[in-house]
Amino acid sequence: MKREALPGSAAAVVHAPTGVHVLADLSGIAAEKLSDCAQLESLLRASAEAAHARVLFSHFHGFGEGQGVTGVVLLAESHITIHTWPECGFAAADIFMCGNADPKLALTLIESALQPEATHIHTARRGPPR
Amino acid sequence: MKREALPGSAAAVVHAPTGVHVLADLSGIAAEKLSDCAQLESLLRASAEAAHARVLFSHFHGFGEGQGVTGVVLLAESHITIHTWPECGFAAADIFMCGNADPKLALTLIESALQPEATHIHTARRGPPR
Repeated sequence: MKREALPGSAAAVVHAPTGVHVLADLSGIAAEKLSDCAQLESLLRASAEAAHARVLFSHFHGFGEGQGVTGVVLLAESHITIHTWPECGFAAADIFMCGNADPKLALTLIESALQPEATHIHTARRGPPR
Repeated sequence: MKREALPGSAAAVVHAPTGVHVLADLSGIAAEKLSDCAQLESLLRASAEAAHARVLFSHFHGFGEGQGVTGVVLLAESHITIHTWPECGFAAADIFMCGNADPKLALTLIESALQPEATHIHTARRGPPR
């Protein structure tokens, strides 16, 4: 099992190698919501917390003024990523979580902030053969 | 279109918001291949280059001696991530690429290095509604 070393605690949190991976294609989003690096990082970190996931690290890269952003939040329970195309009003997000973290809660927050006109969701179960 | 600002060049590389996302569940891998943070980072960066993708940034987190690793390589063309469970011989990799980058070339290198006994692949097309 994957063990989280928690500061100040001898107990380790164990996550089985099974999880849910949500791929969300979000269309019809206002361009200004898709080009602000700091705002998107803040949103994705908040969505991880809403999903009861533990953030280990995040890094967001902006391609330039008014241009797209690519970013990742690494979690003890896996990751959330987003790639945006403000010129197309499109964002591709993915939310992969194991353990007790719930990707649907992260997605709800992301959608409520970005207000896409359309969302296409593809969900995959991840893990070793059963 | 997402534009890459290339150093020393006024021309921008444009990637349409359509891509291929490969989710690879790799089982039966020797534990020592799944707990070396630096080695896994090196492998995923090399796999990005093999796929003709441009690496923007990478970050890998080890959970402790002999324990799993979680990491990401952010690309101009999206990302590659991996999460490992050495105690289970399992790794969950995902490779999302747009433009001319080819996820299959990245996956080939990852599989040849990790030598899984079994691989389960799930592929999704990403992008706005057509």
